[in-house]
Amino acid sequence: METAFQDQYPDDYAHCFGCGRLNPQGFHLKSYWDGEESVCRHTPDGKYTGGYPGYLYGGLIASLIDCHSAGTAAAAKAREAGQPISRFVTASLKVDYHAPTPVNVELEIRGRVLEIKGRKVIIEARVIAAGTTCATGAVVLVQLPEQK
Amino acid sequence: METAFQDQYPDDYAHCFGCGRLNPQGFHLKSYWDGEESVCRHTPDGKYTGGYPGYLYGGLIASLIDCHSAGTAAAAKAREAGQPISRFVTASLKVDYHAPTPVNVELEIRGRVLEIKGRKVIIEARVIAAGTTCATGAVVLVQLPEQK
Repeated sequence: METAFQDQYPDDYAHCFGCGRLNPQGFHLKSYWDGEESVCRHTPDGKYTGGYPGYLYGGLIASLIDCHSAGTAAAAKAREAGQPISRFVTASLKVDYHAPTPVNVELEIRGRVLEIKGRKVIIEARVIAAGTTCATGAVVLVQLPEQK
Repeated sequence: METAFQDQYPDDYAHCFGCGRLNPQGFHLKSYWDGEESVCRHTPDGKYTGGYPGYLYGGLIASLIDCHSAGTAAAAKAREAGQPISRFVTASLKVDYHAPTPVNVELEIRGRVLEIKGRKVIIEARVIAAGTTCATGAVVLVQLPEQK
């Protein structure tokens, strides 16, 4: 059984509402390698609707892209450096919304590493519902300078 | 007493988890004009921590910028056209994270209209905690083609 990227974060940095295993009320997003891409699956609860019922609100789409990209950056850097997973934070996040994203449907968030340069990693991501790419993202992440 | 932008959305489009008055479980974000800028105030609950406790997770920062910008776009277009507020959706969202954003502290989200061109409006926004700008955003929003 593979261990999710987020389940390898140091304890002090594992409290994120989106993906921290130590946040009892959070989403507990889990990301894994799938060949050269990374993948995360999440079914948003119906309460997270956007303005019109049945479709996910934009903020949560951004959250899914952000947390999955941070995990992918950490895993990619760890793989390159041959070291345990450390924690990355987001410097910038760009999301393009292409189509309404349903709630109560399993979403697939897929990530790809565009660049690793020192402590900076750039990830591109997409959110897919039943084969349709609903949103795409580009995320710049930076490795935290020190960790307890 | 001024009516918030979001409280003027048509009922069918007022279900957003971030800012819909008809979503019983949402944040009910409220945005208003403050001179030429718009402003929204929100105190994030402590459970919405990022990886490290005490700081807000990036996804919620994106959500605040997104909902406040959508409201500001709707209000700006309504003011220009001399019509009631309609509903805008996000085409793209860019957030730059400058400093950790605290939870359990009242945040001020301020918006400014950069462009109104037909059905498209561009808003820039910033998230301020106790005088420090923690994040900035640029959001492209599009007026929905038809509303019931």
